[in-house]
Amino acid sequence: MDIINSLTWRYATKKFDSSKKLSNQQIETLKQAFNLTATSFGLQPVKMIVICNKELQEKFVEYSYYQRQVADASHLLVLCIENDTTIDDINKYFDLEKKVRGIDEKVVSSFRKQLIGMYESKTIEERQLSAIYQTYIILGNLMTVCAVEKIDACPLEGFVPEKIDEILNLKELNLKSVLMLPVGYRAKDDIMGDMKKVRKDLSETIIEITN
Amino acid sequence: MDIINSLTWRYATKKFDSSKKLSNQQIETLKQAFNLTATSFGLQPVKMIVICNKELQEKFVEYSYYQRQVADASHLLVLCIENDTTIDDINKYFDLEKKVRGIDEKVVSSFRKQLIGMYESKTIEERQLSAIYQTYIILGNLMTVCAVEKIDACPLEGFVPEKIDEILNLKELNLKSVLMLPVGYRAKDDIMGDMKKVRKDLSETIIEITN
Repeated sequence: MDIINSLTWRYATKKFDSSKKLSNQQIETLKQAFNLTATSFGLQPVKMIVICNKELQEKFVEYSYYQRQVADASHLLVLCIENDTTIDDINKYFDLEKKVRGIDEKVVSSFRKQLIGMYESKTIEERQLSAIYQTYIILGNLMTVCAVEKIDACPLEGFVPEKIDEILNLKELNLKSVLMLPVGYRAKDDIMGDMKKVRKDLSETIIEITN
Repeated sequence: MDIINSLTWRYATKKFDSSKKLSNQQIETLKQAFNLTATSFGLQPVKMIVICNKELQEKFVEYSYYQRQVADASHLLVLCIENDTTIDDINKYFDLEKKVRGIDEKVVSSFRKQLIGMYESKTIEERQLSAIYQTYIILGNLMTVCAVEKIDACPLEGFVPEKIDEILNLKELNLKSVLMLPVGYRAKDDIMGDMKKVRKDLSETIIEITN
């Protein structure tokens, strides 16, 4: 149960060691892991901003309810959604699928039409919400990948997205920030690092229906 | 980059080998991984239903847009939210934290008040949406844990939750189904198993801001 040991090792790091940096190799792993995350219909309506710039990170502290992790972590990952998933995005996906898998239009055409119909029938708010869900899948994946790779991390919903978007000029890029994940190394004096995990008993959270 | 190999190995399994069963040990790992997933403020407003009952699983096919995975997989995991996160739930969390960590009320009282205030200021729909987000974090974690453990899985948003809730009597349990994850072993003739992964190039999905 190695993976369980990893998941037990991880915790929402409250204090990072600001003197320690993740290696390029580690960041490469996180970038690839981000990109390999499953998303709804494979559309990847998401982008990840990888920040390693102390001046910029310091600016975020004020808009992250003064959680120092955004500045002290080696790198700050910002998970964003694209403002909208357009028909053009869906067509690009199928064009990429055909290219990567060497398949013909006739193989994908029926599903292409179905998916376009599905997205056309949704409001922009519904399409954005679907994209937001995908950022949470990514967060779940990245936290586990961090745990396996012994990278400390702290998932953050608590920040003012409009301010972060403004600082990063995300409007111009047609993006909206949803979640942040500071990553790096825990400080030796982060008292939360030695605290026992607080979890309900399995008997309270799992219902089994077996033959 | 072992974890990247694992994430590349996984795919949304379209056809399971219905003759193969996951071991008790594997299911135990998934149950523990579920319970160890990080949730917002640690509140765990979620439950997982572990189903291994062919008759029941067959009933779900009709309400899952005829995706046979729900019936053919060794086990079907249903991720649910609790209908509401109440003040009582928040108080239970802090009581558990105090017990597990052996800390006094004075250590948690200020945060307890703050969190109760925050939840009281939200509508029930907002509290439910927050819980739904947590099920997506869990999905992301579980898919990665499955990949590491070489368990095949297929994340499913596409089903009629009201029907699944009805079949499982979830209303009585104060739960709502959000996501499903059939888990087991891929069928040898699942043609999707040999297909190349379709992913945008990293240059399209990652923005780097470094010194």
